[in-house]
Amino acid sequence: MGAYLPLSDAKISIMDRGFLFADGIYEVSAVLDGKLVDNDAHLGRLKRSLAELRIAEPYSSADWIRIEQELIRCNGLTEGVIYIQITRGVAERDFVYPPDLQPTVAAFTQEKTIVASPLCSRGAKLITLPDLRWARRDIKSVALLAQVLAKQTAAEVGAAEAWMVEDGFVTEGGSSTAFIIAKDRRIVTRPLGTTILPGITRLAVMRLAAQENLKIDERRFSVSEAKAAAEVFYTSASSFVVPVISIDGDSIGDGQPGPLTRQLREIYINFARG
Amino acid sequence: MGAYLPLSDAKISIMDRGFLFADGIYEVSAVLDGKLVDNDAHLGRLKRSLAELRIAEPYSSADWIRIEQELIRCNGLTEGVIYIQITRGVAERDFVYPPDLQPTVAAFTQEKTIVASPLCSRGAKLITLPDLRWARRDIKSVALLAQVLAKQTAAEVGAAEAWMVEDGFVTEGGSSTAFIIAKDRRIVTRPLGTTILPGITRLAVMRLAAQENLKIDERRFSVSEAKAAAEVFYTSASSFVVPVISIDGDSIGDGQPGPLTRQLREIYINFARG
Repeated sequence: MGAYLPLSDAKISIMDRGFLFADGIYEVSAVLDGKLVDNDAHLGRLKRSLAELRIAEPYSSADWIRIEQELIRCNGLTEGVIYIQITRGVAERDFVYPPDLQPTVAAFTQEKTIVASPLCSRGAKLITLPDLRWARRDIKSVALLAQVLAKQTAAEVGAAEAWMVEDGFVTEGGSSTAFIIAKDRRIVTRPLGTTILPGITRLAVMRLAAQENLKIDERRFSVSEAKAAAEVFYTSASSFVVPVISIDGDSIGDGQPGPLTRQLREIYINFARG
Repeated sequence: MGAYLPLSDAKISIMDRGFLFADGIYEVSAVLDGKLVDNDAHLGRLKRSLAELRIAEPYSSADWIRIEQELIRCNGLTEGVIYIQITRGVAERDFVYPPDLQPTVAAFTQEKTIVASPLCSRGAKLITLPDLRWARRDIKSVALLAQVLAKQTAAEVGAAEAWMVEDGFVTEGGSSTAFIIAKDRRIVTRPLGTTILPGITRLAVMRLAAQENLKIDERRFSVSEAKAAAEVFYTSASSFVVPVISIDGDSIGDGQPGPLTRQLREIYINFARG
């Protein structure tokens, strides 16, 4: 089952197809109080991404959990994320891959303040950009160059996230799911399909919101609808629920994190802790 | 300037942004008779790809040529390719990159029979597929997962290449530029832009064809126009000019490599040797 090494000793071949072709997938699970958050769902999506690319599953769910727990233990992680990447493996460079390759697995942890996040207290600024990505965004692949460029552009203007826009509608954030809350308190998010990643936190937030008798509309929305919304937020495994206070410099509502968003964030944190 | 190592010892950090984000570019130059083919043009495109991604240029052109020549020498390469990849470097995992990263450079050679290629003697079969790629195909990035899937699909049905189709028109092959020759001997290929890679062999073939007083139309063409063409071929640095004998199972012309295509291949081989 491989080895646990100091990060500086963890290396892969330059012939790894993850390095040469972005021929691999990844998952990020949050860790809170030293425990994995919603991990079964993340492992389910990991298996789905592998299946979509026909990469062999290197480990069982029980093995993955053992690996994750060992990483938490070795790194003394109490709050942060576990990152897992699986590539098709090492082979002579050719777009066409040989059968029966042994997948490459790399995993590590990162410490991160998630619950007491200053960004979540003050609210995030967003920018919007054209969605330059490929057509299979439902696969959580490491072909992330478009997202890198989008989030870098955001960071350079002091924004925490970039929402990507296609055919006049928001698809999702560079590394998050996009939500708005209409003036009638209905929560709106784009339906699943090949245009967005099936967000694990998206699903949990929708389920938790439904338990609070909040109404959810899975439909597309435009940037102008988002700017006129009562509240705006985004979700991701590594930041939970993040209130948005402006889009492209235009304030949302009164320019403060919205009350329903803060409530959803608290509900999600309770779920994550439970 | 790094080290020359056996391929099995050439490793990179799992934190390399090429591995985690496909945040890097590459170039492939042919080697014939132990000499680089059209290498200045390849190094020019390499610099352009780096500039588009704002990755620092790790070496001067003179340095690159020294590295390439040393790789040819160490590997005793007479016919094949040199592959060079440059990534943004190694950093803590975050879509946003820190300033002043040291780019990672990896390069290796592959032996390949280019001139006496059996595929070029018998002609290549093609399939067509929807173009799933991102919007910046002019950057020769390592975010190649869509091309991997396309070329794998082709290989599994015995085809040598997949042509990708968008809005009813052929964009390009999984790793090649698409050409057709009309019944009036005009050569047709898609104009440059963000929808295709600016092919180095494409440009050389167009220049050589013009010297032979052949007419070239830079315009889009459909799959049905290609199937009805007098001849069809594709170009790439590692295979030069490849005659196409069928598309999606439909024969092109009499189902043999076309005479003008064979002539262009000979002219290109002479250029490559010159």
